[in-house]
Amino acid sequence: MELKRAKGTQDFLSNEMILRLEVEDSIRNIFELYGFSPVETPVLERFDVLTAKFAGGEEILKEMFTLQDQGKRKLGLRYDFTVPLARLVAMNPQVKLPFKRYQIGKNFRDGPLKPGRYREFTQCDVDIVGVSSVKADAELANIAVAVFKELKIPAVVKMNNRKVLDAILEEAGVKKSQWVSVILTIDKLAKLGLASVKKELQAKGVDAKAIAKVIKLISIKGSNKEKVKVLKTALKNQEGIKEVEELLAFAPRVEFDCSLARGLVYYTGFVMEAFALKSKISSSIGGGGRYDDMIGSFKGNIFCPASGFSFGLDTIVDVLKEKVKNFKQSVTTVFIIPIKTFKESLQVTQELRSNGINAEVDLMDKNISKNLDYANKKSIPFVVFFGNDELKKKRVKLRDMKSGKEELITVKELIKKVTNL
Amino acid sequence: MELKRAKGTQDFLSNEMILRLEVEDSIRNIFELYGFSPVETPVLERFDVLTAKFAGGEEILKEMFTLQDQGKRKLGLRYDFTVPLARLVAMNPQVKLPFKRYQIGKNFRDGPLKPGRYREFTQCDVDIVGVSSVKADAELANIAVAVFKELKIPAVVKMNNRKVLDAILEEAGVKKSQWVSVILTIDKLAKLGLASVKKELQAKGVDAKAIAKVIKLISIKGSNKEKVKVLKTALKNQEGIKEVEELLAFAPRVEFDCSLARGLVYYTGFVMEAFALKSKISSSIGGGGRYDDMIGSFKGNIFCPASGFSFGLDTIVDVLKEKVKNFKQSVTTVFIIPIKTFKESLQVTQELRSNGINAEVDLMDKNISKNLDYANKKSIPFVVFFGNDELKKKRVKLRDMKSGKEELITVKELIKKVTNL
Repeated sequence: MELKRAKGTQDFLSNEMILRLEVEDSIRNIFELYGFSPVETPVLERFDVLTAKFAGGEEILKEMFTLQDQGKRKLGLRYDFTVPLARLVAMNPQVKLPFKRYQIGKNFRDGPLKPGRYREFTQCDVDIVGVSSVKADAELANIAVAVFKELKIPAVVKMNNRKVLDAILEEAGVKKSQWVSVILTIDKLAKLGLASVKKELQAKGVDAKAIAKVIKLISIKGSNKEKVKVLKTALKNQEGIKEVEELLAFAPRVEFDCSLARGLVYYTGFVMEAFALKSKISSSIGGGGRYDDMIGSFKGNIFCPASGFSFGLDTIVDVLKEKVKNFKQSVTTVFIIPIKTFKESLQVTQELRSNGINAEVDLMDKNISKNLDYANKKSIPFVVFFGNDELKKKRVKLRDMKSGKEELITVKELIKKVTNL
Repeated sequence: MELKRAKGTQDFLSNEMILRLEVEDSIRNIFELYGFSPVETPVLERFDVLTAKFAGGEEILKEMFTLQDQGKRKLGLRYDFTVPLARLVAMNPQVKLPFKRYQIGKNFRDGPLKPGRYREFTQCDVDIVGVSSVKADAELANIAVAVFKELKIPAVVKMNNRKVLDAILEEAGVKKSQWVSVILTIDKLAKLGLASVKKELQAKGVDAKAIAKVIKLISIKGSNKEKVKVLKTALKNQEGIKEVEELLAFAPRVEFDCSLARGLVYYTGFVMEAFALKSKISSSIGGGGRYDDMIGSFKGNIFCPASGFSFGLDTIVDVLKEKVKNFKQSVTTVFIIPIKTFKESLQVTQELRSNGINAEVDLMDKNISKNLDYANKKSIPFVVFFGNDELKKKRVKLRDMKSGKEELITVKELIKKVTNL
């Protein structure tokens, strides 16, 4: 047996896991402030559900982990939360609309590995099912802004609307049969730059004049208002740009970027993508959009609009790790060192715990210097010494590990002191 | 495509998921009060790690989900957290001992389905690695007691020590070669009763006198103290019973049950198992024990003692569901109904949110009665009406959905009122 993890998977020791749970709790908190309730669907889904023709699309299916149960049923590991959400809604017609739910957990893709890309990764998804109004997209945009504010990550949330892109292509005279393909090329703008996008469009046989016009329109600079103004004049089909204007009235902090396309085929209106600023990490830290067709297809072709946003926990934590200098190594606040008083020390430890203080007591009969070394390495802020001397005086000796200051105090005073920090 | 879940898996809609997360948070809180820090290992593990000969044992391996990645590497879905913990410790020699960690998440077993038994289930594991002292087992016993107290589940945490069982078998004159097999039969006592256990031991060829003596010793009744006293007189090998006595001094709330055996082969000392009282659910809601050999085997046969306890979240939630009458359907506290004032209502909603109140605003332009119906079905406690009349008066109309009482108040008063609840 080789002592190895499965390829593309990660372990998180406590230093990193404490940070990950803090981030997860912050995101959960924002989702709940916005009135989204949790749901959970399984990791294992039926193969035929995950590969339904209106699901994630060919590219994702190539990366799906597949397996069989002992009854030879074909299964897959979920690759996102959206297809399982569609199944969940379709199987639960009693659910009241709007269905505002969030789900946080692992997803799995057996794809090529790059820095920051794993085969098992954590996503935090928030979706509104049943609302076709821009108001829903605005709520999601505001959530994205709120999450990064809460996490103190300088970030930009970019927004566009597929209908704006369509109108641009129409205006530029691109053949309708080429739209999907052209949009997938435009999606690469941020990564490849204008020149490469131009070349790719030429290679795809798009008319030179049309390319020039497309490039001109998706390169508009300026404030949100200025960009909207230019496009309102330039475009014949106004539906998309009007939706953009409406969204900006409710979610003014997002950035309208009419070159944003996003790779996924199932988006039908708004698309959004978030990036960290002042960070070495250039990949997106979240993204989403409107997908009005997918859920209805699972329900037998009923119209069931939906819009969602997904936060990539791993990438977000990578961004935060650039800034964090001292990782918390342990959740413990007070470490108690018994000096031949284990039973009494355990009582003090239990009293701290019942007062809501995370407390640990030496279980290994280590000597004082080894115990101090442990507390130090674990970055535990307070150590308590408890020997017969202290026992007689009905006091404990508290050491502040940062300042080195020691004082003899009662357990009651200890509780008060630590609680007030 | 059939709209179905994979066999043996569950969906959790918000009503159930809110409860599950509350339970998970309570358990996490107790773990942290006891100074255990979180870690995470992946769902996917290498097949050879999961099937190592010192790992979970044959019975579990029969139920393992196996798969391959695209590089044809053999993988499995984890069936518990203990084997991955052993791998984690072995791969991270820098980790300070004692290593006190917890892990909460899904495990997977492709086994037969029974009521309350699923192929994908959530476990909350807490383990101490590196401590051979009874003090570690006592901490785990106290955690088990604390968790059920926190969750308000009347429960008994039973405890025994494999060394006590061995001493009983020795005393009764059972051949050493039969010990493991006899212990597996004793493990069925609670389920099958004394008569069946006797029959099974006879069938296994155990000497009749020995059976009578075993039955007599494992049937001892009385308080913990009384049972310890009887066994201290009856047993020649005192090691186990002395450990039991020591543990009871530090963890007096557990019940010493010298018939408790537990199925798993890897336990080397204490075993524990918890059951809900006054519940229809008779299967255990948690269990654990000492396994001093497993982790060291992964480290190349170093001695590395360990002890752990695992809570079964699904069963615990099943127990709680027997008592809960009104499930929370939504996390939302205030639902705002705009009456032709969406933009201003959104501002009020955002103000509530930035004051820490979970708030939702109608996104679908429903009429008042449909909105009230939605709030009602979702058991949202407060509704706010906000029309032009209220806008002019710089007030909102708050309705307490329980009492039906309505009042015209400022947003500031609204925040104060809801926050104080």
